[in-house]
Amino acid sequence: MSLFHGGRHSEGLLCTEEGTTYHCTRGSSMPQYKLTYFNLRGRAEISRYLFAYSGKKYEDHRIEAADWPKIKPTIPFGKIPVLEVDGVTIHQSLAIARYLARESGLAGQTPVEQALADAIVDTIDDFMTLFPWAEKNQDVRKQAFDDILTNKAPELLKDLDTFLGDNNWLVGKSVTWADFYWDVCSTTLLSCKPDLADNYPRLLALRDRVQAIPAIAAWIQKRPKTAM
Amino acid sequence: MSLFHGGRHSEGLLCTEEGTTYHCTRGSSMPQYKLTYFNLRGRAEISRYLFAYSGKKYEDHRIEAADWPKIKPTIPFGKIPVLEVDGVTIHQSLAIARYLARESGLAGQTPVEQALADAIVDTIDDFMTLFPWAEKNQDVRKQAFDDILTNKAPELLKDLDTFLGDNNWLVGKSVTWADFYWDVCSTTLLSCKPDLADNYPRLLALRDRVQAIPAIAAWIQKRPKTAM
Repeated sequence: MSLFHGGRHSEGLLCTEEGTTYHCTRGSSMPQYKLTYFNLRGRAEISRYLFAYSGKKYEDHRIEAADWPKIKPTIPFGKIPVLEVDGVTIHQSLAIARYLARESGLAGQTPVEQALADAIVDTIDDFMTLFPWAEKNQDVRKQAFDDILTNKAPELLKDLDTFLGDNNWLVGKSVTWADFYWDVCSTTLLSCKPDLADNYPRLLALRDRVQAIPAIAAWIQKRPKTAM
Repeated sequence: MSLFHGGRHSEGLLCTEEGTTYHCTRGSSMPQYKLTYFNLRGRAEISRYLFAYSGKKYEDHRIEAADWPKIKPTIPFGKIPVLEVDGVTIHQSLAIARYLARESGLAGQTPVEQALADAIVDTIDDFMTLFPWAEKNQDVRKQAFDDILTNKAPELLKDLDTFLGDNNWLVGKSVTWADFYWDVCSTTLLSCKPDLADNYPRLLALRDRVQAIPAIAAWIQKRPKTAM
């Protein structure tokens, strides 16, 4: 699945490809973006949220797992996602997403807010990294997932809930990519354990607020349906 | 060990505490910084490098491991380092360091350079996170360290060396916090395996360049001597 936009476009032009219409919001100085990842939400979805929010057009290049061995040696540091920006390849999912968040005004409104958003993202990411995503033995995988979701998730959720408090957004007075990352990661966590956050209605309400942002709601509707 | 600077200082004032002299380079609008970590280089050293480089004064608050259980519940998300900036607590070592890097002009000169520096830092950090730093069983610990240093380090070093190429610095035309992070982390790696990077003279020369920066050379001289 890939969304091509041939050439550059003028302000306000509608771009159509594969039956979907994208609004091209910027003029001819807009960089060419190509995001390469598997056909999963996974580590690329936070960047896809940021593209959806900003309305920037990009190629959402999804590769088949079977093709990865021949592609891997061509990728700096051999891991995806990568984002090509006018021919420069940026690796590391959170470096990519932070770049897009800055470009879209979603990184935080002050230097300290930016640091706090970074800190929340890294805290959630540290937790997501605990899971053995690539484990092939399904019994071993299930046991590890159950252990983390049952025994380690509560501390993360309690700390995030305390940090959020009665605010609308995790950092500052408006949405940041930290809120997006909570939504993206908790979507995967809740697919593993639907009652995971039942004790934290404020964190669930934050998910609702993110998913109610029109551009995000539209993306969730139209994105490829994948398990992870 | 802690370096206190009582009150705020005027441009050029020398601040002395516990036998060490620090140059206070900024005026009374300078934030009050307090960095809390163990008496280790570890996850705080990248931020100490950035403070050293910028000449900003800060409290380098080092706690005893024995005191950690009573301090931990008072720290948001229960992990250190944390940086207090005029009373706001920032957690996560790389969020702290990125904030300091931005404040000091070491985050990268353009948005894409900032993303590349972030990506290099995360790549090195992913590698450092492989090690079971807290493992108590010394046999298990040594075996894991040996395995990672022998079997996994070569790929990281090869990729970093390719990325660096014949440039003086990892990203752009001047030093960034990615160069600092390479020096900080490789100092620990080389203490575990001194010949680790012998096949990569360009990466070793980069270490030399970082350590030759006068403010960094001075910090390395005066910092507390710790194993990690």
